Amino acid sequence: MFDGAIADLVGELGRLPGVGPKSAQRIAFHILQAEEQDVRHLAEAMIAVKDKVRFCVDCGNVSEEERCKVCSDNRRDRSMICVVEEPKDVVAVERTREYRGIYHVLGGAISPIDGIGPDDLRVRELMTRLADGTVSEVVIATDPNLEGEATATYLARLLSPLGMTVSRLASGLPVGGDLEYADEVTLGRAFSGRRQVSG
Amino acid sequence: MFDGAIADLVGELGRLPGVGPKSAQRIAFHILQAEEQDVRHLAEAMIAVKDKVRFCVDCGNVSEEERCKVCSDNRRDRSMICVVEEPKDVVAVERTREYRGIYHVLGGAISPIDGIGPDDLRVRELMTRLADGTVSEVVIATDPNLEGEATATYLARLLSPLGMTVSRLASGLPVGGDLEYADEVTLGRAFSGRRQVSG
Repeated sequence: MFDGAIADLVGELGRLPGVGPKSAQRIAFHILQAEEQDVRHLAEAMIAVKDKVRFCVDCGNVSEEERCKVCSDNRRDRSMICVVEEPKDVVAVERTREYRGIYHVLGGAISPIDGIGPDDLRVRELMTRLADGTVSEVVIATDPNLEGEATATYLARLLSPLGMTVSRLASGLPVGGDLEYADEVTLGRAFSGRRQVSG
Repeated sequence: MFDGAIADLVGELGRLPGVGPKSAQRIAFHILQAEEQDVRHLAEAMIAVKDKVRFCVDCGNVSEEERCKVCSDNRRDRSMICVVEEPKDVVAVERTREYRGIYHVLGGAISPIDGIGPDDLRVRELMTRLADGTVSEVVIATDPNLEGEATATYLARLLSPLGMTVSRLASGLPVGGDLEYADEVTLGRAFSGRRQVSG
């Protein structure tokens, strides 16, 4: 029903993650009625991301330079490496301001269903980075789901002969949540990971 | 935390309707990992909409020509005009394949809270179109919400002295819905709009 250009845009927008046909149409009409300058900014920002952003040669995080901000920051503790699935996980960990080490971005998680094995992830690069003995602790911070757990188990086994501390982020009740609404797996983890409090 | 280009894109995407910070970040990373060609297509589709799409001089619908596809179609019944709020409502009505008349797009609805009155809508253009006596029925198809109802009431009063049939889309139970889940206003409308069935 729409004329060509709008139909094209609705189609292109509908290919973005989390954007269904209705959202695509709403966004397309928003763009149609937006200031031309704003639309150009958005279009240019998309192209700029493709043109400028690459991946850090050390950790695999996104970066506009050869090395990402974390890897090129001399104040970071290079004896501790946090292994995450995706660059956005680096953002999440950085937001806590708890971690002062460096990262290693795998580029996904092991998922036999999707045909993703260790060789499709940056596991070999991780082993190379660990080879020089600078790193004394590896924190595995993959997602607390099936694929993330499988990846964590695989990495833990792979790293155990290297003699460094290997840890995994704690599972348990989310802060601010209600105990009664926690699923049984999470609640079970919270029990098995319980910590003694000083009386 | 992100480097410049990604932060810019997340910011720009977050200004789109229905795209929150999390969605913006997910879309930005999708774009980062998408084929360059696909991203260019999307960016170009946005610019193309701004460059090519304008509004039909007759009805106010979106169009790439001076007149939209409906207005330039000689098979459409020019004695019947359907008044809608937005171009997307034209699409919705066309999809029913029930309507063979032409349209008038108001460009919104009367909303005192947002400071939108009749002068901000294409009401004057509607009166001009009705002046030549070609139109014998006006179907008011504004949204069944507060603003749409206010607009419909206003238009009905404005049009009543002109001596043409003025109708409003029926309100009632949505087809495929459950009676027990209908809100009381909809159910009340369904009662007051009940139709006799032949026994």
